Amino acid sequence: MSTLLAQLRDGLPAEAVVTDPDVMAAYAHDMAGFCPAGDSAAVVLPRTVEQVQHVMRTATALRVPVVPQGARTGLSGGANASDGCIVLSLLRMDRILEIDPVERIAVVEPGVVNARLSRAANEHGLFYPPDPSSWEECTIGGNIGTASGGLCCVKYGVTAEYVLGLEVVLADGRLMSTGRRTAKGVAGYDLTRLLVGSEGSLGIVVQATLALRPEPPAQLALAAEFPSMAAAGDAVCRIMERGHTPSLLEIMDRTTLRAVNKLTRMGLPESTEALVLAAFDTPEPAADLAAVGDLCTAAGATEVVPAEDRAESEMLLQARRMALVALEKVTGTTLIDDVCVPRGQLAPMLDGAAAIGEKYGLTVGVCAHAGDGNTHPIVCFDPKDEDEARRARESFDEIMALGIELGGTITGEHGVGVLKKEWLARELGPVALELQRGIKQVFDPHGLLNPGKIF
Amino acid sequence: MSTLLAQLRDGLPAEAVVTDPDVMAAYAHDMAGFCPAGDSAAVVLPRTVEQVQHVMRTATALRVPVVPQGARTGLSGGANASDGCIVLSLLRMDRILEIDPVERIAVVEPGVVNARLSRAANEHGLFYPPDPSSWEECTIGGNIGTASGGLCCVKYGVTAEYVLGLEVVLADGRLMSTGRRTAKGVAGYDLTRLLVGSEGSLGIVVQATLALRPEPPAQLALAAEFPSMAAAGDAVCRIMERGHTPSLLEIMDRTTLRAVNKLTRMGLPESTEALVLAAFDTPEPAADLAAVGDLCTAAGATEVVPAEDRAESEMLLQARRMALVALEKVTGTTLIDDVCVPRGQLAPMLDGAAAIGEKYGLTVGVCAHAGDGNTHPIVCFDPKDEDEARRARESFDEIMALGIELGGTITGEHGVGVLKKEWLARELGPVALELQRGIKQVFDPHGLLNPGKIF
Ligand SMILES: Cc1cc2nc3c(=O)[nH]c(=O)nc-3n(C[C@H](O)[C@H](O)[C@H](O)COP(=O)(O)OP(=O)(O)OC[C@H]3O[C@@H](n4cnc5c(N)ncnc54)[C@H](O)[C@@H]3O)c2cc1C
Ligand SMILES: Cc1cc2nc3c(=O)[nH]c(=O)nc-3n(C[C@H](O)[C@H](O)[C@H](O)COP(=O)(O)OP(=O)(O)OC[C@H]3O[C@@H](n4cnc5c(N)ncnc54)[C@H](O)[C@@H]3O)c2cc1C
Repeated sequence: MSTLLAQLRDGLPAEAVVTDPDVMAAYAHDMAGFCPAGDSAAVVLPRTVEQVQHVMRTATALRVPVVPQGARTGLSGGANASDGCIVLSLLRMDRILEIDPVERIAVVEPGVVNARLSRAANEHGLFYPPDPSSWEECTIGGNIGTASGGLCCVKYGVTAEYVLGLEVVLADGRLMSTGRRTAKGVAGYDLTRLLVGSEGSLGIVVQATLALRPEPPAQLALAAEFPSMAAAGDAVCRIMERGHTPSLLEIMDRTTLRAVNKLTRMGLPESTEALVLAAFDTPEPAADLAAVGDLCTAAGATEVVPAEDRAESEMLLQARRMALVALEKVTGTTLIDDVCVPRGQLAPMLDGAAAIGEKYGLTVGVCAHAGDGNTHPIVCFDPKDEDEARRARESFDEIMALGIELGGTITGEHGVGVLKKEWLARELGPVALELQRGIKQVFDPHGLLNPGKIF
Repeated sequence: MSTLLAQLRDGLPAEAVVTDPDVMAAYAHDMAGFCPAGDSAAVVLPRTVEQVQHVMRTATALRVPVVPQGARTGLSGGANASDGCIVLSLLRMDRILEIDPVERIAVVEPGVVNARLSRAANEHGLFYPPDPSSWEECTIGGNIGTASGGLCCVKYGVTAEYVLGLEVVLADGRLMSTGRRTAKGVAGYDLTRLLVGSEGSLGIVVQATLALRPEPPAQLALAAEFPSMAAAGDAVCRIMERGHTPSLLEIMDRTTLRAVNKLTRMGLPESTEALVLAAFDTPEPAADLAAVGDLCTAAGATEVVPAEDRAESEMLLQARRMALVALEKVTGTTLIDDVCVPRGQLAPMLDGAAAIGEKYGLTVGVCAHAGDGNTHPIVCFDPKDEDEARRARESFDEIMALGIELGGTITGEHGVGVLKKEWLARELGPVALELQRGIKQVFDPHGLLNPGKIF
């Protein structure tokens, strides 16, 4: 243990190596419930690539596991410490190195917070689309680690679409460049995309070149109330089938609406079974919203309320962004599922999740990035009640099983982490799993990078 | 040899195994000049996944190399036969299995020709964006193999952005599924994206689930004439910097314009140094074109000619699509480079390519997907003239060196194949190359899949 600390300190400034037990405890886990976290040997907060290389060289020399961390807003336990590990927090590597409006790229360090990059891009008339609801806290490194989605991804795609190139410190401390600064490039295998979503298990991202887009007009939203999930799901399908391209297409169920009202006093309708939010950032959003409103009515909406202005639209967005946090207040703890299904299966998925909640006597709130079929059934429970915790875990698993049965995936955007690793094999099958393990072995032969995650 | 044929025929219909020397010769190489091709042992044309599995099992049992092939329009020798190999042509697996407007996906076999899928999608009001100029011939399997780009990719992105999931037959004959049918999904490493652009070296794509988009309005184009490449490159930068999103942004130089005129009698302006084509598929393209026209004028355009109507726009597109074929007529053979640089380096790249041509006493025509910085300097030469062929090869290499020097990549969309494999190491560096080889080893431990390509 003291060898490790001594060697770490040998190449790092004193304040970069933290062993204070309280601080270490604070860095022990992300925001996922139900995921075990161990006691780290140290939390290291480097500021330079060379310092990260030193950490990895030391870790390899001493065979100590390393857990890369961003802001720990993850929802799968992917950033949780394991016993004796080095927690490698990238939070202090937080410089925006470059924003170039001609190339439409940003070059950033991994600790840059998503919203900070978004605002910096806006100042150049540009836009960094991936917008997880946690955007005011989560980091670009974490977004790359989990291949994050968000609200506007229904129109603009997810993180994977925006990562052009990476600088990566490998397990043994060597530095590798992947990808490019150019708009296109196909020289060799796409290691960039392989690293996106690899949850810290293949290398430490120390720099990223990201694609930006021209900033679209501010979006205008509507809210539509539905008497059933079936009708709401039907509306979503009609909207997509008719060729609309909303910049936001979300569903919240009654449980979620109530929870958000309770937290925010926003006055969302509580008598409705499902609220659909749709928005457009087109030059003439009112026309698009009118068409979508008509489709909602045809699908059975009891009420369609277009936002009066951008401010009201922003409030609806905010309501959706608060959903997880609000549901967490219901019982103190939640298990957040992240099943993504074909759009046509949205209603069976969401109704099924509610039924599973009922079966286990638990509150299950549901919100969904509906346009992408990405549902977040949220199981609320009291972790101190052992039986309730067991039922929560069982219902959570049953929700994933339903998702797979409906042709979906166990994780649309939150990743596997420790929370879903038993489920990965079920989804991938043995052949793909074997190849994934083979790739892990190539990058990390000693199994030091975020061990116990994903597989 | 007869063991191989006997074992192949054991699991394949008689007409699927071809050993006629003329047919084998016809399947020996793609459209790249200067790339050696060997004599195959057989050309196999399977119709089912099981038949592909049989071929790969046989190949692995007998340690015979396999070269997967689409339409052989490739420009890097990636589909060229090697001595004693099985040429595995996927051309007969050409069914469009499904087009689903709610999920906005198509499920296709690999031999489907790009333009056929595009038209089938159009019938549902949908659109498959990746549109290599070879689209009337090239296959989806080949597009996936090379991670193809095309003309509209400046707005819509390249093939990698549209592949959601794959069915892949591995070297040993096992079948693997990657990815998903859903809009999003992050379960495990992104093997789908790893396979896109892997040039047949990791597995045989036997089915693909592709994302579609709503069909945009037909595009309207303009042509702008420039007195220098510097001015044309400047115009492209201004257009991108001002936040425009053209659906096409191309450059052709005088040599290319002349060649296209000669072939098509289209009457393109021959006195200009560089012609910029820009198009918009927005609801009101005329306004966008006017703004872009002004930017061209400000950058020094001597003439800006908006297309009168969709038909004239289509003709301009057609002119651009003919560029490679037209230049090929100049001397009978061409070497087509595919260097992608940052947009800000377009002019130095294109002027540099012309200067290299002059230095070697060769005609070098240039066209470029300018909005993406993806240039195609085309070196024309007579292959029968040994000295000219040597100079062609040297100038081709010098063009790549210039591209790397300007911060670019040796291949924006055509792939490495055999043509550029010596160059890959220079671009990637030793660390990334080692990992790429490691991945190859995981998928193909006996080195049977398209050996001698990429690395
Ligand atoms: C209220 C709330 C709302 C959320 N909404 C969304 C949403 O809409 N969409 C969505 O996708 N997610 C959402 N999330 C989940 C979470 O915010 C994302 O997964 C986010 O990308 C995590 O970023 P982070 O910086 O917190 O990373 P962490 O949680 O610290 O780490 C995430 C993973 O990335 C790895 N990692 C971090 N940095 C690096 C690096 N530099 N190099 C290599 N690996 C690294 C870690 O090891 C870990 O596996 C939400 C979370 C909360 C709490
Ligand atoms: C006139 C002309 C214009 C062109 N314009 C463009 C352009 O604008 N943009 C662009 O990107 N390219 C362009 N190309 C290049 C070429 O058309 C593309 O690379 C195309 O994707 C190749 O498709 P193909 O079916 O001909 O594949 P092939 O040439 O037969 O094969 C290409 C590669 O993919 C592999 N492969 C093929 N099928 C499979 C499969 N089922 N499984 C695994 N591997 C497979 C092969 O092994 C090979 O490595 C052009 C070519 C020509 C001749």
